[in-house]
Amino acid sequence: MPYDFETVINRRHTNAVKWDVKDNELPMWVADMDFATAPEITAALTKRAQFGIFGYEEVPTAYYQAVADWWAQEHAFRPQLDWLLFCTGVVPAISSIVRKMTAPGDNVVVQAPVYNIFYHSIENNGRHTLASNLVNENDQYRIDWDDLERKLAAPLTTMMILCNPQNPIGIVWSRATLQRIGELALKHHVLVVADEIHCDLTLNGNQYVPFASLSDVVAANSISCVSPSKTFNVAALHAATLIIPDENVRALVSRGINNDELAEPNSFAIPGSIAAYTQGKTWVHELRTKIAANQRQVAQFVATELPQVKLIEAQATYLLWLDVSQITTDSAALAQFIRKATGLFLSAGDVYRGDGNQFLRMNVACPTAELTDGLARLKRGIRAYLTTK
Amino acid sequence: MPYDFETVINRRHTNAVKWDVKDNELPMWVADMDFATAPEITAALTKRAQFGIFGYEEVPTAYYQAVADWWAQEHAFRPQLDWLLFCTGVVPAISSIVRKMTAPGDNVVVQAPVYNIFYHSIENNGRHTLASNLVNENDQYRIDWDDLERKLAAPLTTMMILCNPQNPIGIVWSRATLQRIGELALKHHVLVVADEIHCDLTLNGNQYVPFASLSDVVAANSISCVSPSKTFNVAALHAATLIIPDENVRALVSRGINNDELAEPNSFAIPGSIAAYTQGKTWVHELRTKIAANQRQVAQFVATELPQVKLIEAQATYLLWLDVSQITTDSAALAQFIRKATGLFLSAGDVYRGDGNQFLRMNVACPTAELTDGLARLKRGIRAYLTTK
Ligand SMILES: Cc1ncc(COP(=O)(O)O)c(C=O)c1O
Ligand SMILES: Cc1ncc(COP(=O)(O)O)c(C=O)c1O
Repeated sequence: MPYDFETVINRRHTNAVKWDVKDNELPMWVADMDFATAPEITAALTKRAQFGIFGYEEVPTAYYQAVADWWAQEHAFRPQLDWLLFCTGVVPAISSIVRKMTAPGDNVVVQAPVYNIFYHSIENNGRHTLASNLVNENDQYRIDWDDLERKLAAPLTTMMILCNPQNPIGIVWSRATLQRIGELALKHHVLVVADEIHCDLTLNGNQYVPFASLSDVVAANSISCVSPSKTFNVAALHAATLIIPDENVRALVSRGINNDELAEPNSFAIPGSIAAYTQGKTWVHELRTKIAANQRQVAQFVATELPQVKLIEAQATYLLWLDVSQITTDSAALAQFIRKATGLFLSAGDVYRGDGNQFLRMNVACPTAELTDGLARLKRGIRAYLTTK
Repeated sequence: MPYDFETVINRRHTNAVKWDVKDNELPMWVADMDFATAPEITAALTKRAQFGIFGYEEVPTAYYQAVADWWAQEHAFRPQLDWLLFCTGVVPAISSIVRKMTAPGDNVVVQAPVYNIFYHSIENNGRHTLASNLVNENDQYRIDWDDLERKLAAPLTTMMILCNPQNPIGIVWSRATLQRIGELALKHHVLVVADEIHCDLTLNGNQYVPFASLSDVVAANSISCVSPSKTFNVAALHAATLIIPDENVRALVSRGINNDELAEPNSFAIPGSIAAYTQGKTWVHELRTKIAANQRQVAQFVATELPQVKLIEAQATYLLWLDVSQITTDSAALAQFIRKATGLFLSAGDVYRGDGNQFLRMNVACPTAELTDGLARLKRGIRAYLTTK
């Protein structure tokens, strides 16, 4: 059965953060999708609602089994069940891990431009961000290994937060790259937190490699964070899983998330996740095809209609990284201008730091009709901006 | 329409924490109910499930309005909308408030015996519990005011956590008592956190007084925590509200719960809470009648069948405090014996500290059939225990 990724669902006035915009505005910013989730998930949630009792809930083995089976089938790697911890979200987990596994004043290494909330998790908890910026060469980003090692070696560095696949650039890191990062981290006694929330959304045959599948010593020095949230458009299901091969690390993190009150599932988190991981496979595969098609539509549009803009090809995620460096080095001002002029609400790249001041991020997880509307607005906005200069 | 509080719903093997027991066991411990929630809530949750998109959710004004209207109608006090903050639970809120509003090493005053998780929120975050024990005189507990003031006045005391209605004793504190506590706290520069999670479950005409309705200066020095969770049996809805009249306190707590990732609602928290507070009134009123009836059944049973046990009359909550001091001063051992001998799983009172070592706590939020079974087991268990002595 082919799933429906074309019907436009009205999300205005539904308390959706994404759609809290003016009536003429089109939001293509925050990372949730305008597609209905897999019908199998909706059915499981409906069934849970109808049960009618919503008392304290625990995490059954069936949940961990569903996660492990999904990884085995989709990602050719089976984590052990006892490596897995439930948590209410990836960001909650990262914030809690920062508090538990580093000390105030420590450095946490990231690779900018990267998901902006990492900076909140680090800095709002009194730690320092140490960014090893990715280097953009001919529209491809690469790691500056000397810089990365210098920053991992800094005496106050105790953690690195890695994003794989990388938001906002859409890079899927190779096994060799991940192994090399992992070995450097080990050498310099830096714990790796691998945020793999976008891992199911690889495109065009790109392959995601779970950090936990690297060599045993590297995996033992890591915490991977995964979730059905991006994959199935269930961010507010509040469900995520931590993969922690090392028993000592796991014991500490478990105490941390429990103490921070982030370890108990709501009534829907478990049945929703189990439905996703046991019945959602075909839906995700079709979703990936749709996202890849949307990226092609953007690529073609930009090539023909907006030669001043360059699309960095996303190997994963529905978040496209648009290089506007020929237009401005103040992407925040540009994003604001476009929003005001056309109602199109994109994410300004500056919040991701690094060279993000020269980029816009566009969320293309939407039906064709919406995307086409968004692209028309983008063209109008950029044309209008250029005439003001 | 009369609601159904008599059908026994099978909760075994449903991931319910309460029912994670052996097949022959009857759990009457953790505070959730064996009643289905109000059908109006189930309908709202079902509708939300069927919408099919579960992206990031924000808290609409309609939520705060529903809370304020409920307090105005049910508790004769209307909090201002801008005093209210959403949080994922009362315990998460208290833990976060302890971290934000006190310093490691500070004292937090409680009145023991009291809800055991307060001790976790205090001590797991590196603060000290300073208990001003309630004094049991002729089966009624009273405050030792001199002791309370001494403890509030201790130089390291910065917070008091008050439980109203009080779990496990079931006391509903009077306006005069609350005002006196509030004034003492003010005098000694101690912030009051009032956990009012059981406030809707007053029995036999007892009246709950919201801490935020006390004199302006006292209210300004307080944070009240409320939730539909106990009232409507929706603990795993993960929804609570903080009532914080003072703008400065509110700003700090808001930053605290946001930083601790406890401020964002899951997809079901808002529609479930709104349904509860706008359509759940009659259901709660009938529930209170049922709980009062269950308490009477226990009182009569204990009086005729178990003269060694004394029931402390609960003015609120479905948690009954059973004085077993004529039998033992080791309620943990007694509870364990009863569980092993009869399968009846009660809470041992010792975890609540104070004189809890001489008490058992019995959760009577269940259909008559279950309660009758539980009482029969209690009798068998206690008789068997007495023959071992
Ligand atoms: C890399 C990354 N991590 C985490 C999140 C959010 O995770 P959660 O909603 O589970 O906190 C996002 C959302 O966009 C993301 O892009
Ligand atoms: C006094 C009191 N506060 C808080 C809670 C739990 O609140 P929540 O589930 O919202 O964290 C309970 C549950 O029994 C309770 O009795």
